[in-house]
Amino acid sequence: MDNCIFCKIAAGQIPATIVYEDEDLIAFNDIRPAAPVHILIIPRKHFDTLSSVGVEHEGLLGKMLTLASQLAEKAGCAPVLQADGSLTGGYKTLINCGPDGGQEVYHLHMHVIGGPKPWR
Amino acid sequence: MDNCIFCKIAAGQIPATIVYEDEDLIAFNDIRPAAPVHILIIPRKHFDTLSSVGVEHEGLLGKMLTLASQLAEKAGCAPVLQADGSLTGGYKTLINCGPDGGQEVYHLHMHVIGGPKPWR
Repeated sequence: MDNCIFCKIAAGQIPATIVYEDEDLIAFNDIRPAAPVHILIIPRKHFDTLSSVGVEHEGLLGKMLTLASQLAEKAGCAPVLQADGSLTGGYKTLINCGPDGGQEVYHLHMHVIGGPKPWR
Repeated sequence: MDNCIFCKIAAGQIPATIVYEDEDLIAFNDIRPAAPVHILIIPRKHFDTLSSVGVEHEGLLGKMLTLASQLAEKAGCAPVLQADGSLTGGYKTLINCGPDGGQEVYHLHMHVIGGPKPWR
């Protein structure tokens, strides 16, 4: 998509702090982070929104969620079981879809948000 | 899991307004909705958090996201292209993981949040 900023990041035409990439997905730091850790995961293939993705790409969507979990762990955000049985840490994964969902860039992307509080 | 409220909903032992179910997933209305549409999608199989799910269950995670899209559309929340080229509508999908992620029930679940504003 000629005018898609995330397609341009995927193509290396716009700089970004890339934290992961493979043949299907790219992950990079959000330039306006809402928390200490704020990563965006995008497919290389362009989809406008989550609602544009058919069931034939279910595997790609699943891979986005397992990558979210892996990147959160690598960033030190995975929940950790403490000796007293309690958990600490954690993160959110979020996909905004459409204007009422708060989507700002119309290339499917998943936010991974975490790190030391405060953030919400 | 004996004390898991979502396992009990999946087993039919606790009532819920179920909007979808199949052999893998169940979706029901959140009892404390944050928006006019607020659906929770859970796997029948118990995972404490998103970080508990291994890549061997990637397909299940992908299915949760395509179901989120389908249920949002069924609930009238999918983005709609207008005659002037603009989009209206939309929704969010959200997984809270761990205490810092705001997770309240420790059975993996995905929120699907949308409908007429205001909500955020």
